Amino acid sequence: MITVALDAMGGDAGVLATVEGAASLSLEDSDIDVLLVGDVPSMHEVLADLRYDPARLRLVHANGHVRMDQDPRVALDEMPDCSVATAARLVRDGDAQALVSSGHTGGLILASARQFEKLPGIRRAALASVYPTEARHGPHNDPFALMLDIGATLSASAEDLQGFALMGSAYSSIVSEIRAPRVALLSNGSEAKKGTAAIIEAHQRLLAGDLNFVGNIEGLDIPKGTVDVVVCDGFLGNVVLKMLEGVSEVFRDMAKNASSRSIQWRIGLSMLGGGLRQLRRLTDWKGYGGAPFLGFDQVVIKAHGRSEARAIRNASKVAAKAVRGDLIGRIRDGVEAQKGAE
Amino acid sequence: MITVALDAMGGDAGVLATVEGAASLSLEDSDIDVLLVGDVPSMHEVLADLRYDPARLRLVHANGHVRMDQDPRVALDEMPDCSVATAARLVRDGDAQALVSSGHTGGLILASARQFEKLPGIRRAALASVYPTEARHGPHNDPFALMLDIGATLSASAEDLQGFALMGSAYSSIVSEIRAPRVALLSNGSEAKKGTAAIIEAHQRLLAGDLNFVGNIEGLDIPKGTVDVVVCDGFLGNVVLKMLEGVSEVFRDMAKNASSRSIQWRIGLSMLGGGLRQLRRLTDWKGYGGAPFLGFDQVVIKAHGRSEARAIRNASKVAAKAVRGDLIGRIRDGVEAQKGAE
Repeated sequence: MITVALDAMGGDAGVLATVEGAASLSLEDSDIDVLLVGDVPSMHEVLADLRYDPARLRLVHANGHVRMDQDPRVALDEMPDCSVATAARLVRDGDAQALVSSGHTGGLILASARQFEKLPGIRRAALASVYPTEARHGPHNDPFALMLDIGATLSASAEDLQGFALMGSAYSSIVSEIRAPRVALLSNGSEAKKGTAAIIEAHQRLLAGDLNFVGNIEGLDIPKGTVDVVVCDGFLGNVVLKMLEGVSEVFRDMAKNASSRSIQWRIGLSMLGGGLRQLRRLTDWKGYGGAPFLGFDQVVIKAHGRSEARAIRNASKVAAKAVRGDLIGRIRDGVEAQKGAE
Repeated sequence: MITVALDAMGGDAGVLATVEGAASLSLEDSDIDVLLVGDVPSMHEVLADLRYDPARLRLVHANGHVRMDQDPRVALDEMPDCSVATAARLVRDGDAQALVSSGHTGGLILASARQFEKLPGIRRAALASVYPTEARHGPHNDPFALMLDIGATLSASAEDLQGFALMGSAYSSIVSEIRAPRVALLSNGSEAKKGTAAIIEAHQRLLAGDLNFVGNIEGLDIPKGTVDVVVCDGFLGNVVLKMLEGVSEVFRDMAKNASSRSIQWRIGLSMLGGGLRQLRRLTDWKGYGGAPFLGFDQVVIKAHGRSEARAIRNASKVAAKAVRGDLIGRIRDGVEAQKGAE
């Protein structure tokens, strides 16, 4: 069995979504136990109305949580036993094997940095996210690619980018079950000499390494999904991923406005029916998986802030899959192999 | 009358599109004369089948052109009288007031750098582009915002970003007729302290200046069109703009594939008819205007490489509008005002 410590408090949807997600997961035929970490009375109140398996879902009390409008550093200093810190400690102490939270991203990053050890050879941790692409990926025809870093760092050195590539490749091969994920650097041109000094050097390092490095890709390739793992610094990743969210919202707004204005649009849209499923996937991918925070000696998954029960359940499953596939060991091995090659 | 020197050769659509565009422009009721610069026999051949006004369209011979697969530096050294260089010289010598080309972007940038003077106070020139947004802009409800730099630079200092903001604002106020365009820095958060060191310093400089600077925007705001002018370095602008192109292509592919597979989709799409116009605009904006290359003492407009006759005509009109509105003078004044404020 794999035990996941789930920060029950922080998300926009509050304790309701996380407890519902954990409750329904406890009834599924899986090898996942959940430690729900938060305010026990609030969690009890929600659980009272739900079916769940008490043998696979236990409550752990925590005092307070990092609110979205708080400085995470101040919050964690003032509330050492808040939900995300308590959940991280459970993982550190071996009571659970993975940490999942839909709360404040900065809070999760900081709690991880304080409780976990950075993996040897990894200078900087990175936040990764799947995003929808036109192309399919891997043996299960996954409609998502992975991008990192999407915001744990600002700039990144050649070494950092190389580390991101290694961690993203390990994660993708375990979670998407791709034997040798195609990895690329995001740049302003496909040629090896294109990009910032850090990108140009990272390109050379990755060519010499043993990942399935396919070179640089351009902005065009992001939605097309030319590769399985897109590597960039956290500033660029943040802008790009938020832009994809923005495009989704614009398309949703347009469809909503148009169909509220005209009956012909409503009929037209309903006729597109199944065909629109692909479009919907491209504009509503937040429920899928979660964003792994990579670089520490423990598995950490950020579920989206607006996460519903289904998204919480999916994030917990992804976390368990990463534990089962020995994500941490795979990253360690990758660092060793890289050192050997240098 | 305003005379535009039009590089007739370089675009993907070849001499046909440029000559057709110039011919139809010569018949319009406008104040624009065109000098078509290229291989005279080829241009004559195309003109033979077209209606045009010979009083407003003259041919100027040039030897060769920068091909898409060439290093522009080598090409310009080997062909000093190629079409883009000859057209630039006509502008430098006062025979024309603006340069328009749909040829090799690097060739246009280099020819401009060699023939024109950088404006005093502007350290680095920038390539700008309009792109489609959900929000409308200015008195004519323009569905486009302006972004710069999209690829003339790689990184940009705080001073460079400030210069881009100033030039973008001047261009937007003339071409989109917005009195005080809303200008923003593209960053990884809206707070003043978010972003790279260059962005944080540029933010302070722009707050102290007299542009209508509204602060930082995030990736989400790009497709929404929260502001009129988006300022970033050329690396980020390149990735972002190519990604918008990629999103367009993905949506086009999806609609095409789905409608070829199912008659229901075809009917559904046709029922959306008018409502799809907005979507089409968001996915096919390349024909609009052109990309101004800003920072020199002459008006330079890059028309998209795949430009059709209509796009060439539009780019020439935008060039004439920039001349009429005294774009260069406005940028000079802006630099002076900025110096005064410091």
